[in-house]
This record gives sequence, C-alpha cells and structure tokens, in this order.
Amino acid sequence: MQVDVIPNVTEARSDDFVQKTVIVVDVLRATSTIVTALAHGCAGIAPVETVQQAKQMREPGILLGGERFGKKISGFDLGNSPLEYTEEAVCGKSVVLTTTHGTRAIQKAQRASFVLAACMLNAAACARKSLELNRDIVILCAGTQDHFSLEDGLCAGLLVDELYRNCNDLEEVNDFGKAMRWAYLAAEHRIREELMESSGGKKLIRLGFGEDVLYCAQINEYELVPVLKDQWMIRF
Amino acid sequence: MQVDVIPNVTEARSDDFVQKTVIVVDVLRATSTIVTALAHGCAGIAPVETVQQAKQMREPGILLGGERFGKKISGFDLGNSPLEYTEEAVCGKSVVLTTTHGTRAIQKAQRASFVLAACMLNAAACARKSLELNRDIVILCAGTQDHFSLEDGLCAGLLVDELYRNCNDLEEVNDFGKAMRWAYLAAEHRIREELMESSGGKKLIRLGFGEDVLYCAQINEYELVPVLKDQWMIRF
Repeated sequence: MQVDVIPNVTEARSDDFVQKTVIVVDVLRATSTIVTALAHGCAGIAPVETVQQAKQMREPGILLGGERFGKKISGFDLGNSPLEYTEEAVCGKSVVLTTTHGTRAIQKAQRASFVLAACMLNAAACARKSLELNRDIVILCAGTQDHFSLEDGLCAGLLVDELYRNCNDLEEVNDFGKAMRWAYLAAEHRIREELMESSGGKKLIRLGFGEDVLYCAQINEYELVPVLKDQWMIRF
Repeated sequence: MQVDVIPNVTEARSDDFVQKTVIVVDVLRATSTIVTALAHGCAGIAPVETVQQAKQMREPGILLGGERFGKKISGFDLGNSPLEYTEEAVCGKSVVLTTTHGTRAIQKAQRASFVLAACMLNAAACARKSLELNRDIVILCAGTQDHFSLEDGLCAGLLVDELYRNCNDLEEVNDFGKAMRWAYLAAEHRIREELMESSGGKKLIRLGFGEDVLYCAQINEYELVPVLKDQWMIRF
C-alpha cells in the first residue's frame, strides 16, 4: 500500500486519485466542522465551491453554511466555526457548506474511490478506516492560497503515524509524508501552541475565532469518519 | 528578519527574492558538490542550466561537470558526485556545472541580493553568514521534478534550527519552515538512514552512488560558504 501526502490543493492532480482512497485535511476549519456537524447528528454535508451553488440548493431542512475570508457569508444560516454546529443547530438537518480551501479540496478529490475527511479530532479513526478500504492512500492537505498550512501538515503527519501503528506493511510513504510524520512526532506535545502560532491560527485569532483553534487542536476526540457519497459527506 | 522555506523550485517566484538572501539547498547532490569543490581549492563553479551552455564555456583551466538523470554527461570531465571533486581534480581550476535541479534553483535565485549554497556539510556556517548579511532569508529547496525532496527539507530544517540558535529575534518563520525544523529535530539522530531511505537517496544507491549519499549526510563538516558573484559560486 502506497501512502502519498500532498502539501496543498494546487499540487493535486485529479487523475492521481483514481482507484485510491483520498483523505482530505483542512484542520482550520472545514474538515473539523464536517466532523463536528456529523457528530452532532447532522444528516449530511454537501461541500460546494461557490456561494451561488449553495444558494441554489436551499430548501426546507437544508441549512447553508460557510465562509469567505474567514467570515460567515451574508444570508447564510451558519459560518464555518465548528462551535456553531451544535446538536441544537444541526441535528436531523442537512448542511450545504462552502469554504475557501476545504470544499475545493473535496471537489478535487472526487475521482477517488473513497473520499474521507480528516482533522485532528478524528485522525486515528480515519487512518484505521482507510486501511480497511485496502487501497493506495492519498492524504490531501487543503493548505491556504497555494501554500502549505502547518496545521494540515501536522494532521497529515498524525495520520501517517497512525497508519504506521496500524499496518505492518506500508509499502512506501512519499518523502513529504515522512517529513510530516517527523514534524508531528516532534511537535506532538505542543499541538495547541503550534496551531495558535501557525499563520492560519493567528489569522483566526485576529478574527475572534481563538476558541475554534483550541477546539480543532484536540486529538482523536471522535471515532467518526465522514465519507463522500453522491455529493454528500455522511458518516461512514 | 523574516525566514521563508520554499519546498521546491517550481513554487519559487523570482520576484520574491529581491532584496533578500537566498540559500539554495540541493543536498543530493549539487550544493554538496559545490561545497566540496570549493573546500578542495576549486577557484569557482559556474552553475548553468543547459549542456550546451556548459560546452560553450569550455576553455583551458575550466572543467565541465554535471549530470543528467544522475549520470555523468558524455564528453564532460566530471559528473555530479562530490567524491570526484578531489583536490587533485579541481585545485586551482574552475568548473562549469550543470545538474537537473540544483543549478536551476541557483539560476532562479539570481535576483536576490545574495545567493548562498547550503547542504548538510556546511549548514551551520551558512546560517551564521546569512544572519550577518542582515536581510530577510529565503531557503529554497531544489526538490525533484516539482516535488519536495526529504533530504532538502531536512537540511532546510537544520538551517532554520541554526538560525534560531544564533538569533534571538527571528521575526517570523513561515509554516513550511516550522514544519521542516520539527522534522529535522525528530530525525536528527538518523539523518544517514533518512537520506538512504529518501526517494532521491534510493535512486542514487540504485545508480551505484551509495557512498555519495553517506558523504552528503555528514553535518557541519565544513565552515565554508559558497556565494554567487558574477555567475560564479566562490568562497564568501
């Protein structure tokens, strides 16, 4: 089983995902929000690229969520803060979600056999599920405007480490995946601090979302694995 | 002082280097070869992009060196193995060098105020010199065919760590630089093994250059810092 980590969406080519399991990572905050929403009883989340696409899908029982430049979109029910996705807000409802980087990464991964969503909150469960699926694995870091994001890289490193723990015959991990695993192992005991000092973390703190950063830094809080099925992210 | 690490040449934009010090890293093997040649008395190394450019510069006292696909170029005096660049071979002579990735990275960095060449062999000296120059620093990993190379990333991490050790007020290190520093610190005690198991290392071992990989894995063996001046890499 080959494991490749890709540093950001721009470096991803859709063709590379065919016949594989893709794990999309956008710790701050799209995949953390998706995991939290499903954990709180949300029926499913449809990741879409544009605000227009989201608005076209509005109907009773469907909420619109998302952000542009970190802030809630005008007229939407929810932003992209996982802390908004409480049981009260989302239980039994569906959500159409559009964010700057995370939903784009999920869209780009659609030619894969399986598309999972991972963040710090569910990394171990996601790693185990991807091994069960028994295909080559691509871990796609969403990143930020063509750049690598520290929080996604550290989460990718955590995923690679969990894959090593749960599989004795990982055939090959690409160079970037090895580097991210080392980075995670060195920073393991200060993930909160690293996220708060990362460029994405600092930006969210400036926008008033410091609590989100602390929440997203929690490791393996949920056993839940979101998987894409017919355009909707649902519980596996 | 801002410090940015760029994962590979493809992600570099020449404009980003203006007014800065660029440290080019191509551990396997261009910058290791440049450091070794200068340490052995070579007068200077001109990095050029094409075989044709190299041939046009041939004259008495100038040797041609380089590789394509890891192998010595037909008609050239030297390959790209640092072990060929002995005192006997290069002392008092100049070398025109063309390699697949490293010389391209040096060419791309030319708009910088200073272009230095670093590898494991001279990282500490290079970090200290770049602090003396008192400009923002870009560490440019050569990488391999648009991809990140583990050995260049670990060397970038070593450079960032040396910068931290020698400077109390590094204003900001980008997310990728932080991740590489963590990766280096975790892998510090098994750099030889990591280089031998990296994709570039394995390729060189297959081509019969295993000794090169072991040689290039040595840390801070030389105090020497190569700097680009009028198209030639010379001792600072």
